[in-house]
Amino acid sequence: MSDGGSGRPDPRQPQALQKPFAGRIAARSEKLATKVCLGIDPRPALHPLTHPDRFDGDPAKTGRAVVHYFQGIVEATHDLVACYKLQSAFFETLGVPGLIALAQLLAEIRSRDVPVILDGKRGDVGSTAQAYAEAYLGEGVFAADALTVNPYLGLDTLQPFLDVATANGRGVIVVVKSSNSGSGSLQDLNLASGEPLWQHLAAELARLTDETADGDGCSPVGAVVGATHPAELAEARRILPRTFLLIPGYGAQGGRAGDISPALAGGAPAVVSSSRALTYPNEGEEFVESARNATLRMRDELNAVTGT
Amino acid sequence: MSDGGSGRPDPRQPQALQKPFAGRIAARSEKLATKVCLGIDPRPALHPLTHPDRFDGDPAKTGRAVVHYFQGIVEATHDLVACYKLQSAFFETLGVPGLIALAQLLAEIRSRDVPVILDGKRGDVGSTAQAYAEAYLGEGVFAADALTVNPYLGLDTLQPFLDVATANGRGVIVVVKSSNSGSGSLQDLNLASGEPLWQHLAAELARLTDETADGDGCSPVGAVVGATHPAELAEARRILPRTFLLIPGYGAQGGRAGDISPALAGGAPAVVSSSRALTYPNEGEEFVESARNATLRMRDELNAVTGT
Repeated sequence: MSDGGSGRPDPRQPQALQKPFAGRIAARSEKLATKVCLGIDPRPALHPLTHPDRFDGDPAKTGRAVVHYFQGIVEATHDLVACYKLQSAFFETLGVPGLIALAQLLAEIRSRDVPVILDGKRGDVGSTAQAYAEAYLGEGVFAADALTVNPYLGLDTLQPFLDVATANGRGVIVVVKSSNSGSGSLQDLNLASGEPLWQHLAAELARLTDETADGDGCSPVGAVVGATHPAELAEARRILPRTFLLIPGYGAQGGRAGDISPALAGGAPAVVSSSRALTYPNEGEEFVESARNATLRMRDELNAVTGT
Repeated sequence: MSDGGSGRPDPRQPQALQKPFAGRIAARSEKLATKVCLGIDPRPALHPLTHPDRFDGDPAKTGRAVVHYFQGIVEATHDLVACYKLQSAFFETLGVPGLIALAQLLAEIRSRDVPVILDGKRGDVGSTAQAYAEAYLGEGVFAADALTVNPYLGLDTLQPFLDVATANGRGVIVVVKSSNSGSGSLQDLNLASGEPLWQHLAAELARLTDETADGDGCSPVGAVVGATHPAELAEARRILPRTFLLIPGYGAQGGRAGDISPALAGGAPAVVSSSRALTYPNEGEEFVESARNATLRMRDELNAVTGT
């Protein structure tokens, strides 16, 4: 067996990894009846087991503790999630041991054949974009199934990411409407054409989705739209009916299942992510059991509103 | 002596590092009569000394060769440059050894008291932006004097970067108008107000520059405006008269000194960056000598058009 809760993938079937990321997530999501994307945002000071004080501030020991902590959470939740999402910033801020931890957790998750998104919001021009694409969508130690990217530098800067993603069955998830309360300061600016900037971008991505779709209708293009802006999320799904949506902002940031349901209706490709609320327990709770229970609750909340 | 070509800084004067980054760059730029920002974009396959084939593809050995190569270039050019700029993508794509190389080159440059910009185009929301700010503008191994950031997620997302930068005398250089030919696909969109998006952003940054300026008029806010768009560069300087400008795209990408001069006139705070043209020689040239000669030429070309 190559996914689900049953263990490691069959090494005789490497071609399974070449299916486009959105197709792999959708298949897993349907099989396990879950839209949950569990976010891994290591913040060592938030738990006694990983607190830097426990290691006299030694960054290498802290990094190893972070790996063990999240290995425990992956072990306890992998049959409940459509995919994982690793937030690069929280690894980078731990220095070189943090990047080693990132590589180890990516390997751990990929060895289970569970799709993993690297949330790095990368973006740059020309050969620099190419370098990022090769780093995160190639075969190196930081390779993931999909990478979040920032479109501000221009739609031409998405091309190197899309080329590498297409060649390797990976995804490029473009930030369209972010989950922060101030997201509108640029994204909501009204254009001379009458539409807000983010809707213009969404329409361009809808076109790119169709242009890059394979025979099964599966495209490497995805979009980030926050759960915290329900009206915009519903509108984004209308503009992007076939595009994979990564929907952050659930739980701790205020997004609720009922607000998200229009974006999930009819089995449209999407996952909903939550990080801290799933991975850092309240005081007195055991972290592995808490992570499993919180992930179960979120899965069921989402399934309740979509009738799954 | 704490800068120039004379060697290491005086350890008895650590407070010099707390002056705002733009002030430190401006002082150095004036003293050494240079507006050159030498860009370090490691591309190991571009030179036989660092080519991965030389090391049977061993990433750790390749990373060490990259460090030696650019240490040689820093040694040969540090009296000719206002600052260095390290492009994070090219280190990240080399895996963990690439990040070790990044930390080593940052330490090398900072130990010479030469300002260094990390070109990472980072940007995210809330606590994630805070993590990036601490990683690159704090005291960790990846700390630089300034970080390039992407504003698409909202002006509120700049605040964590500005707070950490202000506390530590560092800079936050916001991408306004990038150097790629396709930069206009979002940046040049006309808003309902009549101005293009990038000009709206520039006006917001002008306001932020003034709000965050210290008693000497020095602010942590900077802006990226490409040398490849001369009319927009002149307009950006008009909108941002007191903001530090990082001007990429010189040389290999097509920007010329004459095109840039309006942005440098009157001693306005700015540096002009070039990477590959300064650091990877033509066939038959010795790389250290070539780097010094190319940097001298660029310095003199810029000084000729500004009358320095």
